Amino acid sequence: MDEEAEIVIFEKGAHISFANCGLPYHIGEVIEEREKLLVQTPEAMKARFDIDVRVKNEVLKIDREAEELEIKDLNSNETYRESYDYVVLSPGADPIKPPLPGMDGEKIFTLRNIPDTDQIKGFVDNNNPQHAVVVGAGYIGVEMAENLHERGLDVSVVEMAPQVLGPIDREMAAQVHNHLRMKGIELYLDNGVAGFADQDKRKKVELQDGTELTTDLVIMSAGVSPNTKLAEEAGLEIGQTRAIKVNDYLQTSDEKIYAIGDAIEVTDVITGQPAHIPLAGPANKQGRIVANNLVGDKEKFKGSQGTAIAKVFDLEVGATGNNEKQLQAAGIDYQVSYINKKNHAGYYPGAVPLMLKILFTPKDGKLLGAQAIGYDGVDKRIDVLATAIRFEKTVFDLQDIDLAYAPPFGSAKDPVNMAGFTAGNILTGKMDVIQWHEIADLDSETIILDVREEIEVQLGKIDNSVNIPLNQLRDRLDELDSDKEIVVYCAVGLRGYIATRILLQNGFNNVKNLAGGYKLYSAVQK
Amino acid sequence: MDEEAEIVIFEKGAHISFANCGLPYHIGEVIEEREKLLVQTPEAMKARFDIDVRVKNEVLKIDREAEELEIKDLNSNETYRESYDYVVLSPGADPIKPPLPGMDGEKIFTLRNIPDTDQIKGFVDNNNPQHAVVVGAGYIGVEMAENLHERGLDVSVVEMAPQVLGPIDREMAAQVHNHLRMKGIELYLDNGVAGFADQDKRKKVELQDGTELTTDLVIMSAGVSPNTKLAEEAGLEIGQTRAIKVNDYLQTSDEKIYAIGDAIEVTDVITGQPAHIPLAGPANKQGRIVANNLVGDKEKFKGSQGTAIAKVFDLEVGATGNNEKQLQAAGIDYQVSYINKKNHAGYYPGAVPLMLKILFTPKDGKLLGAQAIGYDGVDKRIDVLATAIRFEKTVFDLQDIDLAYAPPFGSAKDPVNMAGFTAGNILTGKMDVIQWHEIADLDSETIILDVREEIEVQLGKIDNSVNIPLNQLRDRLDELDSDKEIVVYCAVGLRGYIATRILLQNGFNNVKNLAGGYKLYSAVQK
Ligand SMILES: Cc1cc2nc3c(=O)[nH]c(=O)nc-3n(C[C@H](O)[C@H](O)[C@H](O)COP(=O)(O)OP(=O)(O)OC[C@H]3O[C@@H](n4cnc5c(N)ncnc54)[C@H](O)[C@@H]3O)c2cc1C
Ligand SMILES: Cc1cc2nc3c(=O)[nH]c(=O)nc-3n(C[C@H](O)[C@H](O)[C@H](O)COP(=O)(O)OP(=O)(O)OC[C@H]3O[C@@H](n4cnc5c(N)ncnc54)[C@H](O)[C@@H]3O)c2cc1C
Ligand SMILES: CC(C)(COP(=O)(O)OP(=O)(O)OC[C@H]1O[C@@H](n2cnc3c(N)ncnc32)[C@H](O)[C@@H]1OP(=O)(O)O)[C@@H](O)C(=O)NCCC(=O)NCCS
Ligand SMILES: CC(C)(COP(=O)(O)OP(=O)(O)OC[C@H]1O[C@@H](n2cnc3c(N)ncnc32)[C@H](O)[C@@H]1OP(=O)(O)O)[C@@H](O)C(=O)NCCC(=O)NCCS
Repeated sequence: MDEEAEIVIFEKGAHISFANCGLPYHIGEVIEEREKLLVQTPEAMKARFDIDVRVKNEVLKIDREAEELEIKDLNSNETYRESYDYVVLSPGADPIKPPLPGMDGEKIFTLRNIPDTDQIKGFVDNNNPQHAVVVGAGYIGVEMAENLHERGLDVSVVEMAPQVLGPIDREMAAQVHNHLRMKGIELYLDNGVAGFADQDKRKKVELQDGTELTTDLVIMSAGVSPNTKLAEEAGLEIGQTRAIKVNDYLQTSDEKIYAIGDAIEVTDVITGQPAHIPLAGPANKQGRIVANNLVGDKEKFKGSQGTAIAKVFDLEVGATGNNEKQLQAAGIDYQVSYINKKNHAGYYPGAVPLMLKILFTPKDGKLLGAQAIGYDGVDKRIDVLATAIRFEKTVFDLQDIDLAYAPPFGSAKDPVNMAGFTAGNILTGKMDVIQWHEIADLDSETIILDVREEIEVQLGKIDNSVNIPLNQLRDRLDELDSDKEIVVYCAVGLRGYIATRILLQNGFNNVKNLAGGYKLYSAVQK
Repeated sequence: MDEEAEIVIFEKGAHISFANCGLPYHIGEVIEEREKLLVQTPEAMKARFDIDVRVKNEVLKIDREAEELEIKDLNSNETYRESYDYVVLSPGADPIKPPLPGMDGEKIFTLRNIPDTDQIKGFVDNNNPQHAVVVGAGYIGVEMAENLHERGLDVSVVEMAPQVLGPIDREMAAQVHNHLRMKGIELYLDNGVAGFADQDKRKKVELQDGTELTTDLVIMSAGVSPNTKLAEEAGLEIGQTRAIKVNDYLQTSDEKIYAIGDAIEVTDVITGQPAHIPLAGPANKQGRIVANNLVGDKEKFKGSQGTAIAKVFDLEVGATGNNEKQLQAAGIDYQVSYINKKNHAGYYPGAVPLMLKILFTPKDGKLLGAQAIGYDGVDKRIDVLATAIRFEKTVFDLQDIDLAYAPPFGSAKDPVNMAGFTAGNILTGKMDVIQWHEIADLDSETIILDVREEIEVQLGKIDNSVNIPLNQLRDRLDELDSDKEIVVYCAVGLRGYIATRILLQNGFNNVKNLAGGYKLYSAVQK
């Protein structure tokens, strides 16, 4: 941006600008060449941008008084100082290592950078391990489980929460659990690690519930904590999420010091509350904003909504905005709705299922979040919904977005439109819904009406439900007591909706359709 | 919606609710089972919705006075009448058959419905044709060319316009031309059919420029015209696009008669002008709106933006909003910008190129349209941009949309964000651009500076350009005359942008970067 500016990058490691997000895939040999992970090199930065990149140079201290940095050259072990007009802090985050017995032993790895990757990959390449324990089932943990499995290892995943992948809600995660188990991954949920010990040449992992796992290596992927050491020692303000506090222009409490990336606290665009969202998209965008602000622009970072996605074996799992857990914590009222559709026209080869969940305000339908799971096309729907959320739109706005349709790509009514229709029907009172977790609390007087075909019922049903296939319903209304509450369900909610409409117009006043249908309900029971 | 309502559907053909959009793929045997094209049947509609579907019943007349329809039962050839409270007209559009000599001969087909499909497929299955001529290269024509090619035919495409696929602009289409030719499709652009004649057992197709093609079958796909016969005869208002005029609630000039689909005129959301946009997405959404309005809602159809996509062999080609031709016709000022990026992180397997063009107002950057061509991920970017356009957003808004990133799906800065960055740079004056078609008019004093590497230059360059690779530019500035206008180019525009920044800050005041780079420029020259 400014040819006159003297720019120095200090990096304590040996590499700049590497592809963190690709690291698990290099271990899994999906990305074969290590080279490919090194997106930029100091030499290229010099040649193209005339930037002085100093790898193996660690910044030890920011001397705000003198406007100087104290740096240690890790090659020579010498310490030197450089003056600054501005500092941009982008020290990232460190993997969390909980203070557990045996934590410092061998064969326990974390994954953040190239040396970490080399270590894990080297271990797998050379030691012929049979089994791995992955501790923590966020995006990185799940990606590591998959990639180690691809390398032929049996993998057990241990997770404190009752579910994998925190950004999605429990009933969505249940589908991921089933998929992971089907692929041969062993899950220990709602269970933490109590400690590690050596056992012959292997490793013993003791869980909080007493289970003991014997393994060959452990990946700790229990989250990251923002790297705030430099900032704290320089007396810069730290936010309530324990990340560096910045203003809209990404300046810290010292206006000469900017901060970006995994080290900072951002504003959650949904709640307006401080949040720590360590993702590459926001980090890259923040870098650009700071560069522009340093040459005189006044660009604001408008907050993060945590849009994220992961491939989980054959599944794609994505989310944007807030989930139920976050909304409950923030005290925000919400309603949810699900739809199931194919990624593209059912009659065109390769059509596979997709489940979309949206969260919205019960009052005016303003979108609060979205989650999707499917075999294809999840990224597209999450991105469209992320865009609608960014622009503060409602479920009604989703109904008429004009999306691209041809049989290989979508449907004339895209899943995103359909999500808008279904949510709109809830808000306008065309359909009342009941959620999967409310079924258990139904009183025994309630009629649970299964409107699927008999053959579907034989494969599994909700306890105490009665079956009248949808197409017979109009003729068999007299079998139902119109004074009672009726909960209708089908496979995914569509036939349940039609049944609801039929019942409501035939003297049944208290009718609810099970959101997400039996497919969702049964996924959680497994 | 309303259980009490008596609903009758009249369809003159034998099928309702078939997958028009899948027809070319059934001919191509991509969709093998004919069954799959029949999405709904009269029996199923009766069982589920209690709707009386009468196929082979043609509506001959709307008697508005009597509020009755005159219908001919094509099975019995008897004519009868039915009274109505409301009519919903959805008669679609008919393929245009220009009045050319020989047009009514054999072996000349159009494709709109199942019988058309059966005819074409039957012909191909039974007559072992070697060659086909496709007349008209809109989405249907291009899909037919591909599918006939898949069946082993040599295919020639004849198109009056200088390009295929009208919704995209000429320089984007040029890339599709190159792809089609590479696949072995013969293109006759800027050339119309003058007439047809029989030639032994084959067909002779004479073109306007005198070229004669000998072929085995002809597909006429020269556009469609709205089916307005019933409406016109009933005295309903017809719009300036020759389609049925409706209000926001989709009522015709008679409030008891609604109309939807390919037969109606809609409002183009960009220009606010009347338009005829015969696509399945709007048609389906309009159907739902009318259903709701008939039971008492007051829903508006908010207009179409013509979002569309097609698979063209290995390419995906999509567009939304207005293109240059439309904006020029509407007298709307615009600026354009291009970016080239991979569909997902370059280091993850399967990364393939994608070119995105956006059109926006020069004043405030409001989005007017977008076009994309690539091997994967085109639908996602078009859908995100369609969403942004629907919500009247600007190129600056694209910069901070929070999109889902993991290596298999995208980049930390998605192509959509990148399009926002590049367009923003044009509007804020960080970079001035020149378009591919302006190169030919440059005066001879202008320096055309190629900043690619020597090896790239050897594969092709712009005439009279001088080469200084970007990384040498800072050291070789003295080779350039700072009083002259400089046009910089690289492969796609990125290095040209960096060179532009370097030059602008080193005393060169008149510097322009070639938008889309040599890749775009050379595609149009071929
Ligand atoms: C395995 C893995 C997979 C991921 N996958 C995804 C994904 O799919 N999608 C996604 O959006 N995000 C993903 N992320 C997160 C993403 O990589 C981060 O959000 C992003 O890298 C943050 O950039 P940053 O500059 O803040 O931190 P980093 O990329 O961590 O860079 C910080 C750098 O600062 C250096 N440093 C720290 N302190 C000092 C000091 N005192 N002196 C000198 N140098 C110092 C560090 O050595 C490091 O190189 C993943 C992360 C990991 C580890
Ligand atoms: C080959 C092909 C491929 C296509 N691909 C795509 C695509 O990929 N994406 C996309 O968005 N769109 C595509 N379309 C367009 C899409 O199919 C139409 O936009 C959509 O079908 C319009 O619906 P409609 O109800 O208005 O008309 P139609 O689907 O044509 O239905 C009209 C019906 O009315 C009947 N009818 C007409 N007059 C009478 C009468 N007097 N009495 C009784 N019945 C009558 C006709 O027989 C017909 O069945 C494609 C179309 C074709 C032909
Ligand atoms: C395929 C076709 C029959 C679908 O008809 P449809 O009934 O509108 O669509 P669906 O069966 O998907 O049902 C949608 C309804 O179910 C509801 N729904 C969908 N999923 C639901 C769920 N999980 N829970 C509750 N309700 C749900 C929707 O809200 C919608 O109802 P609404 O419009 O009253 O809000 C129709 O689009 C058609 O005729 N297509 C073929 C013709 C064509 O489009 N050709 C051109 C393209 S090839
Ligand atoms: C890969 C990386 C080096 C890219 O750096 P970058 O210079 O910001 O990005 P690009 O090389 O794509 O260049 C983007 C610039 O070129 C411009 N540009 C892109 N295409 C252009 C075109 N066709 N014409 C003109 N300008 C163009 C953009 O506007 C942008 O400039 P701006 O920011 O000044 O507006 C950087 O993202 C990085 O270090 N990544 C690795 C680390 C990481 O992200 N890890 C986590 C994820 S794995």
